[in-house]
Amino acid sequence: MPTPDAPGIPDAPAVEQLAAATRRFVRDVVLPIERRIAGSVHDLDPAERAELIAAAKAAGVYAPQLPTAYGGAGLDTRGQAVVFAEAGYTLLGPLATGCAAPDEGNGLLLERVATAAQRERWLAPLATGDIRTCFAMTEPAPGAGSDPRALQTRATRVAGGWSIDGRKWMITGARGAAVAIVMARTSGEPGDAGGATMFLVETDNPGMRIERDVETMDAGFYGGHAEIVFDGCLVGEADVLGEVDRGFEYAQVRLAPARLTHCMRWLGLSRHCHDLALAHATERQAFGSTLADLGLAQQLIADNEIDLAAARAVIAQAAASVDDGVDAANASSIAKVFVSEAVGRVADRSVQLAGARGLTGETLLSRYWREMRAFRVYDGPSETHRWAIAKRAVSRHRRAVAGAGA
Amino acid sequence: MPTPDAPGIPDAPAVEQLAAATRRFVRDVVLPIERRIAGSVHDLDPAERAELIAAAKAAGVYAPQLPTAYGGAGLDTRGQAVVFAEAGYTLLGPLATGCAAPDEGNGLLLERVATAAQRERWLAPLATGDIRTCFAMTEPAPGAGSDPRALQTRATRVAGGWSIDGRKWMITGARGAAVAIVMARTSGEPGDAGGATMFLVETDNPGMRIERDVETMDAGFYGGHAEIVFDGCLVGEADVLGEVDRGFEYAQVRLAPARLTHCMRWLGLSRHCHDLALAHATERQAFGSTLADLGLAQQLIADNEIDLAAARAVIAQAAASVDDGVDAANASSIAKVFVSEAVGRVADRSVQLAGARGLTGETLLSRYWREMRAFRVYDGPSETHRWAIAKRAVSRHRRAVAGAGA
Amino acid sequence: MPTPDAPGIPDAPAVEQLAAATRRFVRDVVLPIERRIAGSVHDLDPAERAELIAAAKAAGVYAPQLPTAYGGAGLDTRGQAVVFAEAGYTLLGPLATGCAAPDEGNGLLLERVATAAQRERWLAPLATGDIRTCFAMTEPAPGAGSDPRALQTRATRVAGGWSIDGRKWMITGARGAAVAIVMARTSGEPGDAGGATMFLVETDNPGMRIERDVETMDAGFYGGHAEIVFDGCLVGEADVLGEVDRGFEYAQVRLAPARLTHCMRWLGLSRHCHDLALAHATERQAFGSTLADLGLAQQLIADNEIDLAAARAVIAQAAASVDDGVDAANASSIAKVFVSEAVGRVADRSVQLAGARGLTGETLLSRYWREMRAFRVYDGPSETHRWAIAKRAVSRHRRAVAGAGA
Amino acid sequence: MPTPDAPGIPDAPAVEQLAAATRRFVRDVVLPIERRIAGSVHDLDPAERAELIAAAKAAGVYAPQLPTAYGGAGLDTRGQAVVFAEAGYTLLGPLATGCAAPDEGNGLLLERVATAAQRERWLAPLATGDIRTCFAMTEPAPGAGSDPRALQTRATRVAGGWSIDGRKWMITGARGAAVAIVMARTSGEPGDAGGATMFLVETDNPGMRIERDVETMDAGFYGGHAEIVFDGCLVGEADVLGEVDRGFEYAQVRLAPARLTHCMRWLGLSRHCHDLALAHATERQAFGSTLADLGLAQQLIADNEIDLAAARAVIAQAAASVDDGVDAANASSIAKVFVSEAVGRVADRSVQLAGARGLTGETLLSRYWREMRAFRVYDGPSETHRWAIAKRAVSRHRRAVAGAGA
Repeated sequence: MPTPDAPGIPDAPAVEQLAAATRRFVRDVVLPIERRIAGSVHDLDPAERAELIAAAKAAGVYAPQLPTAYGGAGLDTRGQAVVFAEAGYTLLGPLATGCAAPDEGNGLLLERVATAAQRERWLAPLATGDIRTCFAMTEPAPGAGSDPRALQTRATRVAGGWSIDGRKWMITGARGAAVAIVMARTSGEPGDAGGATMFLVETDNPGMRIERDVETMDAGFYGGHAEIVFDGCLVGEADVLGEVDRGFEYAQVRLAPARLTHCMRWLGLSRHCHDLALAHATERQAFGSTLADLGLAQQLIADNEIDLAAARAVIAQAAASVDDGVDAANASSIAKVFVSEAVGRVADRSVQLAGARGLTGETLLSRYWREMRAFRVYDGPSETHRWAIAKRAVSRHRRAVAGAGA
Repeated sequence: MPTPDAPGIPDAPAVEQLAAATRRFVRDVVLPIERRIAGSVHDLDPAERAELIAAAKAAGVYAPQLPTAYGGAGLDTRGQAVVFAEAGYTLLGPLATGCAAPDEGNGLLLERVATAAQRERWLAPLATGDIRTCFAMTEPAPGAGSDPRALQTRATRVAGGWSIDGRKWMITGARGAAVAIVMARTSGEPGDAGGATMFLVETDNPGMRIERDVETMDAGFYGGHAEIVFDGCLVGEADVLGEVDRGFEYAQVRLAPARLTHCMRWLGLSRHCHDLALAHATERQAFGSTLADLGLAQQLIADNEIDLAAARAVIAQAAASVDDGVDAANASSIAKVFVSEAVGRVADRSVQLAGARGLTGETLLSRYWREMRAFRVYDGPSETHRWAIAKRAVSRHRRAVAGAGA
Repeated sequence: MPTPDAPGIPDAPAVEQLAAATRRFVRDVVLPIERRIAGSVHDLDPAERAELIAAAKAAGVYAPQLPTAYGGAGLDTRGQAVVFAEAGYTLLGPLATGCAAPDEGNGLLLERVATAAQRERWLAPLATGDIRTCFAMTEPAPGAGSDPRALQTRATRVAGGWSIDGRKWMITGARGAAVAIVMARTSGEPGDAGGATMFLVETDNPGMRIERDVETMDAGFYGGHAEIVFDGCLVGEADVLGEVDRGFEYAQVRLAPARLTHCMRWLGLSRHCHDLALAHATERQAFGSTLADLGLAQQLIADNEIDLAAARAVIAQAAASVDDGVDAANASSIAKVFVSEAVGRVADRSVQLAGARGLTGETLLSRYWREMRAFRVYDGPSETHRWAIAKRAVSRHRRAVAGAGA
Repeated sequence: MPTPDAPGIPDAPAVEQLAAATRRFVRDVVLPIERRIAGSVHDLDPAERAELIAAAKAAGVYAPQLPTAYGGAGLDTRGQAVVFAEAGYTLLGPLATGCAAPDEGNGLLLERVATAAQRERWLAPLATGDIRTCFAMTEPAPGAGSDPRALQTRATRVAGGWSIDGRKWMITGARGAAVAIVMARTSGEPGDAGGATMFLVETDNPGMRIERDVETMDAGFYGGHAEIVFDGCLVGEADVLGEVDRGFEYAQVRLAPARLTHCMRWLGLSRHCHDLALAHATERQAFGSTLADLGLAQQLIADNEIDLAAARAVIAQAAASVDDGVDAANASSIAKVFVSEAVGRVADRSVQLAGARGLTGETLLSRYWREMRAFRVYDGPSETHRWAIAKRAVSRHRRAVAGAGA
């Protein structure tokens, strides 16, 4: 029977079974740890991470997005939408179940673009959780940020390979990663639309060093966000990922699905916020009533329900677009803006519903609220996506008019 | 091939084919008339209505929601979501293609609740467009409005049937209808949760009279909105629709899908608003640029795109809930609030984009903008739905807590 | 004693006395007529307009903004903020009390820029209400709209004066006006920042004709909005208002205060909307309670109160800026955006609170709601003002940084 | 000359001079320290606090709200609105200039309610900055929170005075304070509208102990927020503040102005956020342009400007209401809701404008953004104020109707 979580998706029963197992695993196994560390994922003990992963494998809920050949469940994007939201009910959940950023997106990229040898070397241990990876694209000003074409890090040809020089910033998960996928300019100048290449750089390469951990308002990404310097960093021809000068193109392969899977996980976390708020509102008495029965609290609760339902629906449609290859970039761009803003509103209202308790470190709410703020900025800020969405709409309209006039 | 309009729905190719035919019919046949009458559907000439219906039948796009036995395409709710949005691109479209309110919802109600004889008498000619119908539930203050239980109109048993007394208000399409489905109290007092019964009343019944046409800001419903008086209005036992005292229950049968089909049609109209705004913004020059290329206009365009995509997604999910019978009332309630507000925002931004022209009667925009305002009020105002949504969320939470504690 | 309506303004007692007299006049004399004509000011009978003006004079509340030499009360902008909001409680109020657009702003312009002879000829009868005037600046696309520099209407020198050619659009109050202040290009090309001149054109000039009345969603401006053609329209040197080529500069003299006085009047009308909504909400029963006591209605009521208080405060501050000549253009620009949007929200919530009744022509609400929509477009749409506000903020910041670094 | 910061207020030149001196002091002396401690006021070294206070006194900007007899400038609320916003440009500023919460409000309360002896003992050293104080009202659930009448802490009469028992929570500045103003129930039961009394409790009273520092998302209040236990805490009759059983009444004396001075300080901090965002936006390049010149960034900048202007205006009007004693409680309630939400929006947009940098600890922005979130909760959450505002509006309307009908 189709369930409320998976209406109309192919293979709904299997997906729903996996979602239910993930839900149980997250609530029974992960949540107690999340509470103990107060949501500070970035400094989880590595041994504890390994135990969590082992438990997830034992529960049959590890890396569901990966092909069965790599031990996953081969979920398509529609199915991921249902399951990842269960994993994302806590910050630790995706890490435990092998679908956390940036590894999840890097796995997809390697699957699509890497050579067999590269997949053997990096994707196989990534799939088992034995290594972690990072994606090194963004740079401090005036380099690549919202505008990737500002890319300044350079790779120049040397005998037998390439030498990379430059500085990367806000590289999530770099601390502790085994390999970095590094975007560097192999032709053209900062501002040019092309000329980028991806490289696989082992993190013990002597030409690469983590200069510092950037202190940020979020704490939900394992390994945090690092600033990295590449200084005459030598890599071989075999370390080029895909073809030279096609890096921006591959980035799109990764980004459209990756921002959608972010949406899925944050949807889960915002459901958790809402549940925490409901728990408070149904217990707290005020003005001779239960808080949850007061009209202005009901408005907050209803608006949360509406935002959660709409976010789920928008993700489901974008997932279908990605699976069907129809308008995928635009659909995931729209989903990113809508969902990042909707889950931010849900977290904000939940804090408000929880009153003073929501401001303290005594519930997970204030941690989650801060965590979600960042999502309106990374993976393209709302403003950049809106700009792109408007330009696409105008182009589409002009083509339609031209077509009608022909 | 799945298309952007119908991702993931069963029988997508057939639905998409019907949607495309409806789109062509609406743009080629209906739109020119809509422009001529400036969107004032309520005073379309009956002969012209008949011609439009004939043309829609000829184009194979008439009454797609009805069972094939009644000449329709037997679309489920998912399919209606795609096709009705095409019909709703204009105000006249649903009238022309036999899916306008209130006939569309009344047809569903008759199909589900009426006896074979009643279906023969009323549903058959409704299905062909030969008659129109109305649904007489709401009353002037202090009667049934947002709160249906305030129902005051009474039906009392008389020999061989019932006598109805009371006053109804804002009865859409009553002028010109052949039959009214009348909600009257058969037991209990105003404020009671039960005790309502539905009656089929021929509009030439001498005990029923249309007292006046209520002047409203909208003009998109054929026949307008009437105030009706029932004064010793005698009907037979055979005119009871369903069972006595189950009227509120049947109203829910009608209302959950009916408010969702409203959403579908208004989604279509808001797309039209957006297209009109894009047409203006891509032609108008200001500040040395095309309006559509200015940043603050791009914000309006992008927000329209996002709202339209989200509204479509929310409708699709609610349609799946209705078809699958899972959480249908709540899903359609959420959809009603979200979509009525989203399409209102789209219409408002479209007026803003069109500048002074959007304020005039020279485009259809100001007509559409007014039209959509009413949707946040009828079929339950946003506030009533939010209240119900919050109460359901709190109940669900309490059940979950009780279940977990058991 | 200072009152809530005039805290901290100079000469508060006199202002408050005038405000109270205006309030009584509007509620006792004007409101009954407003109800009878359902707010359709544009087609008020001229004789009735004359009677209203006579009554306002008798009540001592006519043209309070004019210098005492012209029979007014010589109110500064701070004082106007208090009194005009009382006049604007109805649409007819400003017309009756001689402070309606466009005459109010045109009076100010004449007072500041006109020669003694021009003032004698036009300002004197304007001040008594014996004539009306209009301000002919905006043009149909691709002419002057949000961007005044797109001005296309041309005045060319001829023997003894000028010949004007061009087309104006949305000229409020033109129908029935005695004189038009016409903006025409006397040098440069459309798009140039300068080169405009103002002319005083008698409306019976054979070179000027009203081509049509533009049908719009609002009905609150006496004389409506006309499209006007100038075809070899000859005027003398004495009909130049101010100096040649300084028209854009004079337009600013008029526009900054004029958009602020619009804010004042609309604030009054939005208070009326709120009062109508409160009247409904305190009478209507639903769900076993008075509507006004339900939580979600309370949210609407509170948000109205907040918006009304904020709009009043923003107007008061901008009025002080205009009177003190400190940052007046920016302050009135900010006020225009904030107030036009705030009063729009108030009107919208009031319609929502009034439910189905708010959608009908049976209260003034739906008329007022439509009326206010236009204010976000005319006098510069919100987007144009935001653009200008942002550019000023950035310039100010850059100057401050440069100053600090010097 | 009146300046943009103080239009229309009495004694504007003196106020503006003090505001300018405060601005210089905050930017030259305070800001460097604020940067060094990254805005974490709660753990500033006490010696450094003393140095800052000495410097503020030397600059003539200390405790401007206090009567001149206590060394202050005797500013009325209008004047405070201008000066406190300058102090509040940083989190440390109010602490340095003697106008921080809770001491600022406690000083006002002591000035109004305390006996001469109490003033001598507590107000005099508070006025010089030699001691700090706290206000112990709120309690953990199910005690006094948004609803103060839920007060549970009890004071019972004993020989020579009172014995206090109970638990307080989120008591700002308790750590390091010399005295606590404690609200305890002296009659009635939790939920009753009266029966509270204020006591002055020395913090070294053995019956009072700070149980813990509550970890919260904000860090801008010196001494943080403590949980305190009163366990047979004995105080004398001379320690009753004002009269027995009038505590709720005195709380209003303190709360209406105190929430308004909060607004003033947060307005200052939100101006700082906006300045930090402008600094980023005018330096950062993206998409071939300066960020500040891109349309969607301009929208954020303009909306900040509008919110800042509106917040300033709303504060100014409420200050006039407080000074004039006209509708003060309602005006400060409205101001609290509007300003707490407006400054929250400004901080949020500023973070968005600053992109990834705004998420880091490298600017003060993310600290300020978190800081402001709490203001929508304390001093009465937005929902409680809206409820009260709506109820007052409905009462006012009913009185007006009754009056008109009489």
